[in-house]
Amino acid sequence: MTRPRLLLNAFTMNTATHVSYGTWRRDDTRQTEFHTLDPWLELVAILERGTFDSVFFADVVGLYDDYDGGWDTHVTEGLQIPNHDPAALVSALAAATEHLGIVITSSVLQDHPFSFARKISTLDHLSGGRIGWNIVTSALRNSARNFGLSDRLAHDSRYEWAEEYAEVVYKLWEGSWDDGALVRDRERGIHADPARVHKINHHSPRYSVEGPHLSAPSPQRTPVLFQAGTSAAGRAFAARHAEGVFISQGSPEAAREVIEHTRGLAAAAGRARGDIKFFQGLTVIVGSSEYEARRKAADLDSSFSETGLLAHRSGSIGIDFGGLPTDTPIGDLADQVQGTRSAIEGLIRAAGGRTDVTIADFVRHKQQATRIVGTPEQIADELERWQDAGVDGINLQYLVTPGSFAEFADHVVPVLRARGLAQHEYSPGTLRRKLTGADNILPDTHPARAWHGAFTPAPVAP
Amino acid sequence: MTRPRLLLNAFTMNTATHVSYGTWRRDDTRQTEFHTLDPWLELVAILERGTFDSVFFADVVGLYDDYDGGWDTHVTEGLQIPNHDPAALVSALAAATEHLGIVITSSVLQDHPFSFARKISTLDHLSGGRIGWNIVTSALRNSARNFGLSDRLAHDSRYEWAEEYAEVVYKLWEGSWDDGALVRDRERGIHADPARVHKINHHSPRYSVEGPHLSAPSPQRTPVLFQAGTSAAGRAFAARHAEGVFISQGSPEAAREVIEHTRGLAAAAGRARGDIKFFQGLTVIVGSSEYEARRKAADLDSSFSETGLLAHRSGSIGIDFGGLPTDTPIGDLADQVQGTRSAIEGLIRAAGGRTDVTIADFVRHKQQATRIVGTPEQIADELERWQDAGVDGINLQYLVTPGSFAEFADHVVPVLRARGLAQHEYSPGTLRRKLTGADNILPDTHPARAWHGAFTPAPVAP
Repeated sequence: MTRPRLLLNAFTMNTATHVSYGTWRRDDTRQTEFHTLDPWLELVAILERGTFDSVFFADVVGLYDDYDGGWDTHVTEGLQIPNHDPAALVSALAAATEHLGIVITSSVLQDHPFSFARKISTLDHLSGGRIGWNIVTSALRNSARNFGLSDRLAHDSRYEWAEEYAEVVYKLWEGSWDDGALVRDRERGIHADPARVHKINHHSPRYSVEGPHLSAPSPQRTPVLFQAGTSAAGRAFAARHAEGVFISQGSPEAAREVIEHTRGLAAAAGRARGDIKFFQGLTVIVGSSEYEARRKAADLDSSFSETGLLAHRSGSIGIDFGGLPTDTPIGDLADQVQGTRSAIEGLIRAAGGRTDVTIADFVRHKQQATRIVGTPEQIADELERWQDAGVDGINLQYLVTPGSFAEFADHVVPVLRARGLAQHEYSPGTLRRKLTGADNILPDTHPARAWHGAFTPAPVAP
Repeated sequence: MTRPRLLLNAFTMNTATHVSYGTWRRDDTRQTEFHTLDPWLELVAILERGTFDSVFFADVVGLYDDYDGGWDTHVTEGLQIPNHDPAALVSALAAATEHLGIVITSSVLQDHPFSFARKISTLDHLSGGRIGWNIVTSALRNSARNFGLSDRLAHDSRYEWAEEYAEVVYKLWEGSWDDGALVRDRERGIHADPARVHKINHHSPRYSVEGPHLSAPSPQRTPVLFQAGTSAAGRAFAARHAEGVFISQGSPEAAREVIEHTRGLAAAAGRARGDIKFFQGLTVIVGSSEYEARRKAADLDSSFSETGLLAHRSGSIGIDFGGLPTDTPIGDLADQVQGTRSAIEGLIRAAGGRTDVTIADFVRHKQQATRIVGTPEQIADELERWQDAGVDGINLQYLVTPGSFAEFADHVVPVLRARGLAQHEYSPGTLRRKLTGADNILPDTHPARAWHGAFTPAPVAP
């Protein structure tokens, strides 16, 4: 059986500590230089050498929820604070590369959709159509409070907001300018044809946007759309909108469930099952022998900060693990922490119903389950296991940067290429075309395309 | 007498037609390529060759007001539509340069101040402290309607908004992180010191922002602050906030009045008169002889679009000149256009009280008055006249790009250098330091600095 190639995405964040806790203290990582250009330029050169499809920037626009009653630990660990605007990096990375896709996270909270649409169109033009957008809704309380809300909205309300936000930007990207509106006719002095540029006159509870969009259609019009939530509302949103979904499941079997279910929802929404590509988050430690790989893993573990991990997981789970003995069984948490019953129930569900799992085991379990340590061949074997579960690509997380990416590009990718699992060179065209082999623009089954031509007046009868 | 050097700023916009109407049709300009990276990379290389201090991007986030009853002409002429996000270009330009300042326009309408502050800090870090911000309030109706307002706010209300917006970003840039908070102590595992990072808890009519700022202090903390309005409210705002003011006066004498008056207001606000640098907008056409310069001017004029100029001026003045004979005296406008009495009165005042000036003469007058045609020596002489009126620098507008800038860099700058009016090489440091010779950060007399340390708890008595 011939396998399709695995899509390769590099997962990073414009901050000191993304999901590799404590390693910023090492000499063999550039995490503390994230605020400068040079480490990013080095990274994207490595990724193109390894024919990665894309680099993906996670982002938050506020602090994680409390750990140990506050956010001191976050600051001490460099845990996503300071964090910098990923969008502001993009044009420099686009200028330094030719093929690499650049995917940024942006929340409905942080940018007005009119500004966001223009920014993305600008970047899609500048990069020749290599931009992706990871749509997020900001679950963090502090993020909400940085943008005028008194608290975060309920989960489902956030997805309603995302639907509304998507509608505004789709109207601007797909509907405001007809195909061929940008004429650039020097002889006749027509830069663009006013009959083919339209206001959108959007009015919804949150947004009134007159338009027109200020950018003529970029190579992809709408950037490649990514999403990362796997809640019920998240899957429904992904089924409708996403072209790529980042998952972080503890096993290929768990991945298969999410993938099959979401693909089914996509089909029910009138899209093709294959219209969504799934990227599993994985960490890889490569050695020329298994022994060497394990020795490197032990060395990396010696820099690991369990406090950093606990603080991050406290914030994402919504239970403050600070001050609790880490050998506390999760079944005993309800006696020790107040007002987080539903979070604790979710935790126990995530542990397969087991209440005797300790906090330490729980938070380290996923780290371990998504980590592959071995020779390039062993790693390729493991990646095939994930692929067999329906995974289209991987979202490679670093332990040190750019070292983790360089190891993968230089040692694993050649083995993947030999097995037909990685491309030898880039195919031409936009990021969407590279990922799907199809068109530069979205297929007509995607809801964004409903707005294409929607503002064009009907032709007047002759 | 030794003259100070003239500060050199290049004025441009991420669009096809900024203020050079019709020239996009020429073969010797790259205006129609504005959506790609290459013309911008060529431009900034020219500007560094000419030791320009900065490049400044104008911007609008909507259409100009109607011309000929609508906006068809704007689209046909490429008149600031399409226009792209200047901030999205910055990191690519920063990566390609070493010294050039990069000044972007951003309106209080378009970005939430929390997001804006992070974007600017990100760019100031990436560029090594070379970012400037031209604060605008968006006078255009369509801009307001793109951001949820039913119409533009009254002039003075817009400046109140700008005051509020500035306060939020100053708190984030100057107050949220104390000096030295970013420790990066690998031995002790302290990335930053939580005792020196603070929430700002800002609450005002428009904004509630908890903080902390997500970026550690950038080289300049607050970007160099520019402003361009010369109304009463605009001058008062500039006197309080601006470090650079872009003016576009019809004569050195008119420039002197604005400069003297604004400097007086700055002194009254507790700042030094010299804390504000004034940049006069000028167009320059260079020839090796006066004859050659005039021939080039005639050639450029042959591409000029009077319609483009009229449409732009209609939008900025607030009177639709479309359909009116251009030989209509401005004193007769009140009979011909409705509901624009105050705009017409302003026009007549701007014409020195004369009512017999025609529309055509009025709109072309400033174009002519701010255009210098001649040999490099003649141009240098004229620049000295502007300098004698108190102008600190020029805001060089293009007729063709990058040609107009290259001519200035290669033919006028050497003459300015020989006269001690231009630098031979860049001085080290941030944009603020280069412009003022003083500190990287704002002086304590600037209102932003009132927030420095304002959120630091008082030390506990031992």
